[in-house]
Amino acid sequence: MTPEEARDRFAGARVARLATAGTDGRPHIVPIVFALAGDRIYSAVDQKRKRTTALRRLTNIASNPSVSLLVDHYEDDWGKLWWVRADGRARVLDPDRDEESREAIELLHRRYPQQRVAGAVLAVDVERWIGWSAA
Amino acid sequence: MTPEEARDRFAGARVARLATAGTDGRPHIVPIVFALAGDRIYSAVDQKRKRTTALRRLTNIASNPSVSLLVDHYEDDWGKLWWVRADGRARVLDPDRDEESREAIELLHRRYPQQRVAGAVLAVDVERWIGWSAA
Repeated sequence: MTPEEARDRFAGARVARLATAGTDGRPHIVPIVFALAGDRIYSAVDQKRKRTTALRRLTNIASNPSVSLLVDHYEDDWGKLWWVRADGRARVLDPDRDEESREAIELLHRRYPQQRVAGAVLAVDVERWIGWSAA
Repeated sequence: MTPEEARDRFAGARVARLATAGTDGRPHIVPIVFALAGDRIYSAVDQKRKRTTALRRLTNIASNPSVSLLVDHYEDDWGKLWWVRADGRARVLDPDRDEESREAIELLHRRYPQQRVAGAVLAVDVERWIGWSAA
């Protein structure tokens, strides 16, 4: 799969999974909703997820910006399996002060009118799109 | 959500995502099929995925056994969202020499008759089941 096709498939998904790792080396993984702008993935911490444990992605990124994101498709017919991974570096934006953050929230709101953004916005600058398809 | 309910929901899923991290701190994420035995998750590297890049989970685990696995459910009706995470430590078994590995392959084959196991079997000893549900 070409990086372009991997990116297109990623863009079409409604949910992705974000893996981060802290300085202790322990990986952490959460489902996220997201919006894509070129090779940048935006995601926001919304009200529902603003519990202490859910913020581990933010403390991890503060100490280690390397992240990996996954979109995958499963069926019991394994001839139809596919997945796409985006590896990159994450930044935490401040929703009150940052123009990029306002644009990200706008993009997210267009995709997910049901989201009420309440906290930080993540920007991931994708360095590598990788995909695999059984077909 | 109680750890027991988190475990039950995990057990019912057909696919999970496995996050590992190497000594360089870079997280890595792949979709996996799996079988559960108590608080142990088994997964195998099958033929289709035996490319060089797909083995990164194994080299990561060899240097850093901490892993995180995720099962999640997405719908645009966010009142129905849920996810379950399993944090634990992974071991790589040798399919040719290990009794546990033979049992794992048997469990996997029962769940996924379509899988042809060709490589290493992973065992994850789960230390923590965590779940969240919007409902």
